[in-house]
Amino acid sequence: MKLHNFNSGPSILPPVVMQKAAEAIMDFEGSGLSILEIGHRTSMFQEVMQEAVQSVKSLMQIGDAYEVLFLHGGATTQFMQVPMNLLDTHETASYCDNGIWGNKAIKEAANFGNVQVVTDSTSNNHTRIDKNFVVDTASKYLHFTTNNTVEGTQWHTLPNTSTPLVADMSSDIFYAPRNFNQFSLIYAGAQKNMGAAGVNMVVVKKEILGKISRKIPTIMDYQKHIAAGSLMNTPPVFAIYVSLLTLRWIIEEGGLPEMQLRNTAKSNLLYQTIDSLPVFEARVAKEDRSLMNAVFFLKDQSLEDPFLSLCKAEGMVGVKGYRTVGGVRVSMYNAMPLSSVQIFCDLMKHFASKHG
Amino acid sequence: MKLHNFNSGPSILPPVVMQKAAEAIMDFEGSGLSILEIGHRTSMFQEVMQEAVQSVKSLMQIGDAYEVLFLHGGATTQFMQVPMNLLDTHETASYCDNGIWGNKAIKEAANFGNVQVVTDSTSNNHTRIDKNFVVDTASKYLHFTTNNTVEGTQWHTLPNTSTPLVADMSSDIFYAPRNFNQFSLIYAGAQKNMGAAGVNMVVVKKEILGKISRKIPTIMDYQKHIAAGSLMNTPPVFAIYVSLLTLRWIIEEGGLPEMQLRNTAKSNLLYQTIDSLPVFEARVAKEDRSLMNAVFFLKDQSLEDPFLSLCKAEGMVGVKGYRTVGGVRVSMYNAMPLSSVQIFCDLMKHFASKHG
Repeated sequence: MKLHNFNSGPSILPPVVMQKAAEAIMDFEGSGLSILEIGHRTSMFQEVMQEAVQSVKSLMQIGDAYEVLFLHGGATTQFMQVPMNLLDTHETASYCDNGIWGNKAIKEAANFGNVQVVTDSTSNNHTRIDKNFVVDTASKYLHFTTNNTVEGTQWHTLPNTSTPLVADMSSDIFYAPRNFNQFSLIYAGAQKNMGAAGVNMVVVKKEILGKISRKIPTIMDYQKHIAAGSLMNTPPVFAIYVSLLTLRWIIEEGGLPEMQLRNTAKSNLLYQTIDSLPVFEARVAKEDRSLMNAVFFLKDQSLEDPFLSLCKAEGMVGVKGYRTVGGVRVSMYNAMPLSSVQIFCDLMKHFASKHG
Repeated sequence: MKLHNFNSGPSILPPVVMQKAAEAIMDFEGSGLSILEIGHRTSMFQEVMQEAVQSVKSLMQIGDAYEVLFLHGGATTQFMQVPMNLLDTHETASYCDNGIWGNKAIKEAANFGNVQVVTDSTSNNHTRIDKNFVVDTASKYLHFTTNNTVEGTQWHTLPNTSTPLVADMSSDIFYAPRNFNQFSLIYAGAQKNMGAAGVNMVVVKKEILGKISRKIPTIMDYQKHIAAGSLMNTPPVFAIYVSLLTLRWIIEEGGLPEMQLRNTAKSNLLYQTIDSLPVFEARVAKEDRSLMNAVFFLKDQSLEDPFLSLCKAEGMVGVKGYRTVGGVRVSMYNAMPLSSVQIFCDLMKHFASKHG
């Protein structure tokens, strides 16, 4: 049976990425060695790293004011590393609480300084993103999660503030063009739109670093990673290579404008299908709907299990909602073809015709 | 040309591990999905994690007093994480300074508490391991590096102390049987004897945890990782799978006694060859020689470049000494076949016959 992988992450990657990653394990670009056994300080790997960094800079259209790092860990590591590097003990940072991941970031930041929560969507079950808030001018930075994987919301405009922006883009990095130059720090675990689990991309504007008094452990210090070109210690070589393959694929397919076209087409199709079938219900405000993760429910909750069972039987993988939210979640990252979303929508219609 | 991969790490892995890792990228155990796109909370991956943990416990012959974790990062992360979890600000930990990695561990620990260096082999260029030192009874733990990858020394007995032992075994984990029950904490970056870069194994005796007053960031807290079964956040899925494949290979080949036999045979052959050829010189004390990394020199330094060029021309990969040490370094991890060491030794003899 053909499977359609709607996993929220780790998630679908382009077939060509899988193919080339498998080939590189047997023979890395004709070297006679596996990508798993080459030294990270060889010219072979240096070229991988350099091309990955340049590809990110090119896709983001950012200049020399920024550095691109590929580090161990995922976004959860950054929840700690960002305030450790940017926030002194007696300073204040502002955070948006729009879901489970932003909330975790807030808790970790509180270990390092004062945290001001400028907006909290708990009261509406994180079904909308309030953009009417004021950021204290003394705030060191404003942190937000551009796409809330669990709740299915996404920022479609930037917060209206002159405070430096810090964003967790783990689940929508490179989904569309963005004005990346408006951010001071961007981080993203790779395992959704950018590669395999086990590597974290950090894009940082150099001018915001070096302004705190705390002594930072070496492995957590962005400035030391910059000085070492992401090679302070053995990096996650294979995961970085898979990111490079994915970055190459994005560029070859037409870059971020093309990703935006595809993601818009897929999400339009899915949300229109949800809205057209009374058996289903999307609770997220229309203007805040995520193009990456559609979260919706069966109006009659007793139909949830039958629907999820049908999905499983028909090869739809990973569509059960997050454990604290329930319902259905369909993730449509860059590598997800429109044809899979179409097949999923057809299944929804089929189910609705039986249970409508 | 057939290559012989003597890289110090990332380094050679068994061919069957490469083969199965490549297969899993195209289709993970018949699931129809790639190992790169499966969710880390699926039963498919839970089985990988459970088997990896059980394999480690079985190879180490450790019981329920210990927990096995697979975490993001490498040993450099542990240089910070160990004292963060074990050492309160006003407490003292003892460290052995037997080379570059142990020295880095000392510097990071000093950010968290008092560090007492009980032995320092700088004065003999780290060519021998002094075991005659006294550990303060008030010391929280004694940290040492069981195998010094850069300098080519290895501990062949355990330190004589009742202080809890903490060891960085990154470059000789599973090279031979050890009394692992004498350790309170063991960590190892996987990229030498245990898999691919991007995952860190931590084996910890539970009784030593929870004894400090510091607030530990969530992602750094061993106790929280234990509670979450190494699944607090998205783990480095593929790197853990490669570790499992390598652990399976060790077990199927005969376990740690068989690894010891092979590593003894390889290192005996190489060191005997070095000692028999006056053109070469091993400076490490014989009783402290590493079975994993043989570091040696050309007595006439002007012959170093010609020898390294010959090695390269003959397909001997990664034999140039570490940049701060120079000379030649031949790494012979578990997956290195005796036949490759034999071919290398033949090349040494050939070179000596021309330049002896």
